[in-house]
Amino acid sequence: MALRGHVTLYDYLDSGNGYKIRLLLAQLEQRYRWVELDIMAGATRTAQFLAKNPNGRIPTLELDDGTYLAESNAILWYLAEGSPFVPEGRIEQAQVLQWMFFEQYSHEPYVATPRFILKHLAPDSPRRAELPDRLARGRAALGVMETHLRTRQFFVSNRYSICDVALYAYTHVAHEAQLDLEPFPAVRAWLGRVASQPKHIPITRKPP
Amino acid sequence: MALRGHVTLYDYLDSGNGYKIRLLLAQLEQRYRWVELDIMAGATRTAQFLAKNPNGRIPTLELDDGTYLAESNAILWYLAEGSPFVPEGRIEQAQVLQWMFFEQYSHEPYVATPRFILKHLAPDSPRRAELPDRLARGRAALGVMETHLRTRQFFVSNRYSICDVALYAYTHVAHEAQLDLEPFPAVRAWLGRVASQPKHIPITRKPP
Repeated sequence: MALRGHVTLYDYLDSGNGYKIRLLLAQLEQRYRWVELDIMAGATRTAQFLAKNPNGRIPTLELDDGTYLAESNAILWYLAEGSPFVPEGRIEQAQVLQWMFFEQYSHEPYVATPRFILKHLAPDSPRRAELPDRLARGRAALGVMETHLRTRQFFVSNRYSICDVALYAYTHVAHEAQLDLEPFPAVRAWLGRVASQPKHIPITRKPP
Repeated sequence: MALRGHVTLYDYLDSGNGYKIRLLLAQLEQRYRWVELDIMAGATRTAQFLAKNPNGRIPTLELDDGTYLAESNAILWYLAEGSPFVPEGRIEQAQVLQWMFFEQYSHEPYVATPRFILKHLAPDSPRRAELPDRLARGRAALGVMETHLRTRQFFVSNRYSICDVALYAYTHVAHEAQLDLEPFPAVRAWLGRVASQPKHIPITRKPP
């Protein structure tokens, strides 16, 4: 694929949403500038950053013409389109989007958010009260994935694509959200297949 | 664009997510079979429906070859690709996706869900306790839209596209979620522009 110019990724190392982009860029062998923002200190809520992304979130991608692109799964699509990481058929592309919308609506708030509450907020945070409901919904999302993966190697077309990247990002650290993957053997086997893809990197790997 | 065969839409009339698809199909002049499910009576949680969409949600689209597609914004993309409702450029397409992911992550849970709680659950539902936090986040989402629309006619490329459809669906009934649009004049002007597009239909219009 033709990757255009140099891009800058505004990010936070422990973010699974940011990791999606780092993982794809590593697998595309695309070089980029990496700017880590201290989200816990409000670095995404400054006037300077809100001018880049009015929704005040990382990851945000800056293109070499000064255009900004937000939303991790839209960034994945932008970077991967035309590459082997997006299937070619019209229905297959829509299915990739289906699983990425599932990830943001039915998975991320119930896997990533509990992980954030447990890992980054104080042990006496009132937000801990949200955990039982969020984790029940997280287990429901893992159940949907388990059903789908029982008969498949990857989410769409039995081929690794950006919707696997999107769903891997927080599923592989679900234990940090106190979500036990033991009841989900097909999900665990799929995590192993994703981790064994060429040029895979861990979430802890700082970009050069 | 080439629309292939006959499609069936599993839906619920008052759903904004379902309305997105009905509105686009009307504007594409595509005929379809419409099956309304009583979501309040659990019709999306039956074994029969879970076989169509393991996540148990409407809207779900059935293609004439028996393939099912879920997630309203993925369905919009599938139906609109190659039509005037999706811009042509690579970055513009990614921006359309950006706003659709914004809609599902930062808008729908804080506009659609309060509307659902107020309109469809009992007045003494314990879920009413969620309203203050959800509505505060709903106002934040409307503020992001207001900032963007102050200098634009539509969300991407100053042209009506499927991300306008996606964001219109619940924004135009925000008052049913007790969200006041008075502080958001650019959003109100944009709602008017969307409603005046050719072949627009209201959310209350039952498909023939």
